[in-house]
Amino acid sequence: MSHTVEILSVGTELLLGNIANTDAQMLSQGLSELGLNVFWHTVVGDNPQRAREAVALAKERADIIITTGGLGPTCDDLTKNVLADAFGKKLVFDEGSADRIRTYFQRIGRSMTDNNLQQAMLPEGCTILENDWGTAPGCAFEAEGVHVIMLPGPPSECRPMFQYRAKPYLLSLSEGVIASHTIKLFGIGESTMEAQLREQMNAMSNPTLAPYAKEGECELRVTAKAATDEEAQALLQPTVEQVKKLFGAKVYGVDVPSLEYVIIQALKDRGLTLGTAESCTGGLMAKRLTDIPGASQAFKGGIVSYTNEVKHNVLRVPEYQLERLADKDGNVVVGGVVSAEVAAAMAEGVRHVLGCDIGLSSTGVAGPDKDEDGNEVGTMFVAIATPEGTHVRALHLGTRPMRDRLRTQTASHAFDLARRYLSGLDYGT
Amino acid sequence: MSHTVEILSVGTELLLGNIANTDAQMLSQGLSELGLNVFWHTVVGDNPQRAREAVALAKERADIIITTGGLGPTCDDLTKNVLADAFGKKLVFDEGSADRIRTYFQRIGRSMTDNNLQQAMLPEGCTILENDWGTAPGCAFEAEGVHVIMLPGPPSECRPMFQYRAKPYLLSLSEGVIASHTIKLFGIGESTMEAQLREQMNAMSNPTLAPYAKEGECELRVTAKAATDEEAQALLQPTVEQVKKLFGAKVYGVDVPSLEYVIIQALKDRGLTLGTAESCTGGLMAKRLTDIPGASQAFKGGIVSYTNEVKHNVLRVPEYQLERLADKDGNVVVGGVVSAEVAAAMAEGVRHVLGCDIGLSSTGVAGPDKDEDGNEVGTMFVAIATPEGTHVRALHLGTRPMRDRLRTQTASHAFDLARRYLSGLDYGT
Repeated sequence: MSHTVEILSVGTELLLGNIANTDAQMLSQGLSELGLNVFWHTVVGDNPQRAREAVALAKERADIIITTGGLGPTCDDLTKNVLADAFGKKLVFDEGSADRIRTYFQRIGRSMTDNNLQQAMLPEGCTILENDWGTAPGCAFEAEGVHVIMLPGPPSECRPMFQYRAKPYLLSLSEGVIASHTIKLFGIGESTMEAQLREQMNAMSNPTLAPYAKEGECELRVTAKAATDEEAQALLQPTVEQVKKLFGAKVYGVDVPSLEYVIIQALKDRGLTLGTAESCTGGLMAKRLTDIPGASQAFKGGIVSYTNEVKHNVLRVPEYQLERLADKDGNVVVGGVVSAEVAAAMAEGVRHVLGCDIGLSSTGVAGPDKDEDGNEVGTMFVAIATPEGTHVRALHLGTRPMRDRLRTQTASHAFDLARRYLSGLDYGT
Repeated sequence: MSHTVEILSVGTELLLGNIANTDAQMLSQGLSELGLNVFWHTVVGDNPQRAREAVALAKERADIIITTGGLGPTCDDLTKNVLADAFGKKLVFDEGSADRIRTYFQRIGRSMTDNNLQQAMLPEGCTILENDWGTAPGCAFEAEGVHVIMLPGPPSECRPMFQYRAKPYLLSLSEGVIASHTIKLFGIGESTMEAQLREQMNAMSNPTLAPYAKEGECELRVTAKAATDEEAQALLQPTVEQVKKLFGAKVYGVDVPSLEYVIIQALKDRGLTLGTAESCTGGLMAKRLTDIPGASQAFKGGIVSYTNEVKHNVLRVPEYQLERLADKDGNVVVGGVVSAEVAAAMAEGVRHVLGCDIGLSSTGVAGPDKDEDGNEVGTMFVAIATPEGTHVRALHLGTRPMRDRLRTQTASHAFDLARRYLSGLDYGT
């Protein structure tokens, strides 16, 4: 039997546009991978009557209802009340959940107000989905031929609650197994990638091949359905190999979370260390590398040299390199702070100052305005310094992307140099 | 008359989770500002039957329907067909729109396929919303007491089409103005804040008071409706003052984007400079400060000292402080790298090394595991060093939040020290 899903999000903040409905996106992706058809997203505010009407409709047209939001004390646990009502269930107090909520407040060292214990009221006979990422537990039940799953609204809770609580519950509803691999690429646009694969994608049914673009990177998800995981893997493997061959050095990994993860692993494997010297990325490279647990074995540290003074005093970039200089005919003789030379000097400087094997650097104009030397927004240089020498990549990322996107892309380009060096590939473009 | 709005988005890519429904967010924000109540978001795929059902429902419950998506040739102009049908209108060919589409293709230098001219078929008697940002024109009409506005789906088209085409049309429908202020707080939980305000919030109707929580911070939005902006502001002001008085030093600003923004502004105003020394936050403090355009006037730079070697060599933290030491009875004599002493030495060190007025630092255990000295995940120290002395705040953020959340909160606590110092407040807890 083929299931149809409605995602029902409860939250006035969505209707006011304070936040985008990223929960619905995340859930839709996850549900599609499980082979479940999402046919509707509905959003209502913290309003009991409209929530009731939305639930009545969802109950008629879908056989799986997944709700997000409306579980906390500030909305009187609207969602639980309405859903329990719609299926003729009572809310009962769950002592285990109450304990977890009390413990949570003890651990974060805040006093708990009584309204927090409302969150321990749950539909009778439900499966409790324990929330290790916040206070409001989720729950799931089946009634009148409909499966209901309630998840908390904050994305930092909704995502792991889906992954570790709802997904196992849903897996039991789908027949056979779904397996997938994600191939990660850097240095290729989504439309170029799609154009190269379109015919093949259209011709495939099992496995399927789906492209995604995010934050200047691309990924391809290969998904197969089969009776056993072994059979699914056998279906997946040839496609994964084919895609890796097609895109060559642009593929930076399969089933890996990020470029920075790949770098930290490769550094650990080879017993090497890395340091960063950042100007335009302002700490983002260091931040992303230290997002990876255990990064301290490979990442020694970084210098955020946001002023010329720090570039010279701490990173030892020669002062003459930091000021743009033109000859009498107007030809630029010294590029100034946004130049290949300064990127190189910064990478070499941090390698020396922190005593690490590899130095990575960035300098450029993240906007919103041109710099004092007249360099356009989006003009960036990233460099890598290694025992074998120094390499600079010049970037012209365009004036249109926003500041945070330019910074993210610049950091990713620096990481691309590092992962190519660590994999023994050429530096590419 | 008070209008109620439904936003109906048409697009299978939304149901597959390929993109988030940022159009609905953008529209909701803009509509709220116009004083229009958005009560529903609905998403359906490129499926005529489900689109028809969604339109029939929207027609019953809303008096303004705004659609996004489903206007282009790849979906057979699904949205226009379904909406025209629902209101008994025919689609007629509009020569002006056809011309604009032809011109658009000429300008971008691509040959136009015939299916593109379908986009010039529009509901009879509608107001055409010319699209200067893509090919598919939008349109608006009133029928059976309902206003219908159709906008293209790509956010780069939907946003300007709303701003410059739909908004002028809608402005004529709304009476009076809506104004709001957002009060930002740090150091208080959403439920505590809400408990202190609940009675007041329930008693208020104009202005209204709405709480939001994000990333370990809280905000309160005060919104008033009146005939003129002046009257709305007069309604808002007493509530804003009341809330500021109630929460005192926990309020860090009104209508400001972030803690880091407040710090950069205060530093610039007072001609002071700041530097960061980060261990557990690993560059996040520097990254957040440099998210603010023009930060370079106030933020000199930062040291990410992820290893003891860098803490000692670059920040000059005394070596003896970096190793935990216990006496023969097991009493800790030296706290080691995660300690108030090291946080203080780091803040003082970076102030000295980078030559800035204020040094901020962080050291702690972001997880996922305890550190070598047995410190629990969530044990953090942040410090500020100023010409007047050094202050350390010890944090126990709990073992349950995720690594990125712990790091964000730790950075925010360090920022809280800086903004309190710059505002002449005590350092709080």
